[in-house]
Formats: sequence, C-alpha cells, structure tokens
Amino acid sequence: MNFLLTLAYDGTNYCGFQVQPNGRSVAQTFQDALQAVLGSRPDIKGGSRTDAGVHALGFKLNFHADTRIPAAKLPLALNQHLPPDIRVLDAQVVPEDFHARYAAHTKTYLYRIHNHPIDSPFDAAYYTRVPRHLDEARMQAAAQQFVGRHDFLALCAAGSSAAAHGDTVRTITDCHVTRKGDEIDIEVTADGYLYNMVRILAGTLCEAGAGRLDPAEIPAILESRDRSRAGPTLPAKGLFLKCVEYDL
Amino acid sequence: MNFLLTLAYDGTNYCGFQVQPNGRSVAQTFQDALQAVLGSRPDIKGGSRTDAGVHALGFKLNFHADTRIPAAKLPLALNQHLPPDIRVLDAQVVPEDFHARYAAHTKTYLYRIHNHPIDSPFDAAYYTRVPRHLDEARMQAAAQQFVGRHDFLALCAAGSSAAAHGDTVRTITDCHVTRKGDEIDIEVTADGYLYNMVRILAGTLCEAGAGRLDPAEIPAILESRDRSRAGPTLPAKGLFLKCVEYDL
Repeated sequence: MNFLLTLAYDGTNYCGFQVQPNGRSVAQTFQDALQAVLGSRPDIKGGSRTDAGVHALGFKLNFHADTRIPAAKLPLALNQHLPPDIRVLDAQVVPEDFHARYAAHTKTYLYRIHNHPIDSPFDAAYYTRVPRHLDEARMQAAAQQFVGRHDFLALCAAGSSAAAHGDTVRTITDCHVTRKGDEIDIEVTADGYLYNMVRILAGTLCEAGAGRLDPAEIPAILESRDRSRAGPTLPAKGLFLKCVEYDL
Repeated sequence: MNFLLTLAYDGTNYCGFQVQPNGRSVAQTFQDALQAVLGSRPDIKGGSRTDAGVHALGFKLNFHADTRIPAAKLPLALNQHLPPDIRVLDAQVVPEDFHARYAAHTKTYLYRIHNHPIDSPFDAAYYTRVPRHLDEARMQAAAQQFVGRHDFLALCAAGSSAAAHGDTVRTITDCHVTRKGDEIDIEVTADGYLYNMVRILAGTLCEAGAGRLDPAEIPAILESRDRSRAGPTLPAKGLFLKCVEYDL
C-alpha cells in the first residue's frame, strides 16, 4: 500500500528534510520511526525539500509498505517513536503510483516576521525579528509584483543546480502579506521554487516595507536576473513549508 | 523615580515570579539584571504573582531608583542582562506612590488549550492538550456562569491563605471562550484570584465542553464551596498572565 503522510516539524535541530552526509535529517529520523513501527525501512518520497533550520506545518511524504496497521493508526504509532519536534498529523492511503513530489502542483510557504524592537520570550525560534517599522501596504504592493510566470534567477542563491541548467522560470500563483499586531506573515504559493527563493523574496519585501526599495522596481529586478539587486536572504528560522497541494 | 515595567516571560524554567527559598524565580533573575544596569538592587513590587511554570504576556512590576537612564532606554538595557526567556517590553515613569499590586483593579489571565489528539512540535510548552473534542459553545455557556461576585472557594486549591482567612469572594468581570481551529482560549478578568483558581476554572470549563458537566450546574458548584465538585486543576504550562489593568 502507498501511504501519504502529513508531518509538522520544528526544523531548528535538523540539517533539513533530505538525508545529508553531515547532520541529522528529518527524513532519517522519520525512517528510524518507520523501522521501529513497520520493522522495515521503506524509501520515502518527500513532497518538498526544506533546508537546514526550516520548519514545516504540513509537509507531505509517501512510502510503500505492507502492513496491517490501518492508516488512521499510523500517526499515533509513529509519534511514539519520533522526537517531540516531529509529529505525524495525518495518514491516508493513496493510489499505488502516487508520488508526493511529482504529484504536487503547488507548494505554499509562510515567512514570519516579528516587527518589534524586542524578541518574544516564547517563539523567537519561529520568526525573524525586524526592529524597524515595516509598512505592510508597501510590502503587499511589492508582493503583487512577484505574482505570475517569471524568471526568478534574481531571487536564487548561488549554488543552485536549477540555475546551472537555466531552469529558473517559475509561476507564483499567490503572494500576499498580512499583519496581525507585531507579526507580519508573508505567504507564497508557486509551482516550484529556486534555492532560497522564499527567503530572498521575503528579504526583498522587507526592503520595500522599510522604504529602501520601491515596489515598482520589482519587475526590473526580475528582468535583470541579478541576485545583487534583490534584498537579503532572511534566516531559515522564519520559514515554514505550510502545505503541498495535490489533486487527490 | 518610580518605574513601571511590562515584562513577558516564559515561566517554564522558573519557580514562579516571587523569590522562593528553592528554585530560581523571575523576580531574582530580574533583580540581577537591575543590579547590572543600575548598580543597585531596589525592591521590586510585582503586580501579580505567577506560580511555577506559569507564563506572562504583560506582567507589571515597579521599583524606585535614582538613575539617569531614561525610561525609554531601560528595556534595551535590561534585556541585555536578562536571559531570552524574560523580556522587558516597556518602561514608564509613574507617580512616586504607585504600587503595581495595590493599584491594579483587575488582572486578565489566558488559558490555552490545544484541542487535538497530537501535540504541536512548536509550542507544546505553551498550552495544555485535550485530545477529546470540546464543544466551545458549552464551554462559553459555562464561562458565563462564573461572571459576577461569588464565593470561589470551590475553585480554590488546598493550602490557600485567603481560604484560611475566609477571604474567598472575588468578582469576575469577564470570562469567555474562543476557538481558532484547534486552539481554544479561555480569558478571565477578575479583581483577584484564589490559589489555582484559573487552572481549576479552565478544568471545569473542559468538563462542560466534554459533556461531563452541565453548564447549569455551575451556580450550585459555587454555592457548595466544595473543591471536589469542580473540575481538575489544569497544568501550569497553559496559563498566561495576559495583563494587569490600572487607572493611570
């Protein structure tokens, strides 16, 4: 049977989702739990990759396994063998040929900013603090400029294999900014992302919010394909993979 | 000068606000920071007491000090000497005779419940999880029964000095329940609280939400002055002192 699982995790102590030569990954930790529950170690296909320190609210992965454990019982069984910073929220059976990465039509990321001079004592691991006041209307105006099918090379960190292959066109279907008190949330939905794209996009929106960049400059920045014209790469700790969208 | 400060803190690693013979208190930690910044260790008057493990979003305290540091610079100066789980959010100068506890006319507490079978990997230290579905309309109906001037002995834990002195009448001016997705927030505003009163009140609302207690029974529970008829004492980690209200 092919199981599709939804996970939430705090990425602080992981080198990312994917198994890496150095550092402990979410995938490896999850496979250890599968081994404990199923007695085997099936291949897992992640719906996305998250980098070191990036969190997930609704990560998706699938794996094939022969087990009598019904899907509804898998979350509880696996959570007993997972550390508290990784939780399985849901499990379902999907068609045999379903692949969590290839079947995904879009993915949504959330970037959280705490726009305050002082950190919160509660969740400083889950946002980036920007002390200077940000104008969320300017950020929203800038966000709108990213929506559509564009070459996003200007928002791509060095070392990207997609960039090396000239594969840097993506479609952002939604990008919006909301403020609740001191928290500014940036949400982006796209059919795919380049290396550090959301963190650079968030950094560029902050430049707009701080008045250092005019939202109307964004199309020229994209056209320039010049990373140095976009804003800084914000830290991983403010970034959450919110969900992966499928037609199921 | 008399300074009134607003603090937020994560109470997880403290024995409460007040200095205790055993364990590290928020007050002691704060006084260490005052010593570092002012070179003296003034008496501090807390607007409330929070028990071990209880958090604060807007704790108030005042102290008298002669210093040339303007109030607006105190938060930054003190935060440099405080651990990250205690933050000074605000400081202002108040009249010489202002006392953070005696001047408070009401205090508002928040109790957070995560109504889900699975813990969150992000903030499990900041709520109590109730796996069974709670009906928030029943909880709200029960909450309304607590509003008013009542003898709250039935919601008072053993070992209360107020109870020993027969001083158990308090006025709850607001008590309401809101749900956002899986999070249920209980907010209570009162002119004073008995020992563990909010945690027992929250436990009683959960009994109502789970269908084990009829909201209409609350008046009789209060009249009985019998702790055993109210609900369980919920854990400290879900409790936040939200604010202390003054006429300033």
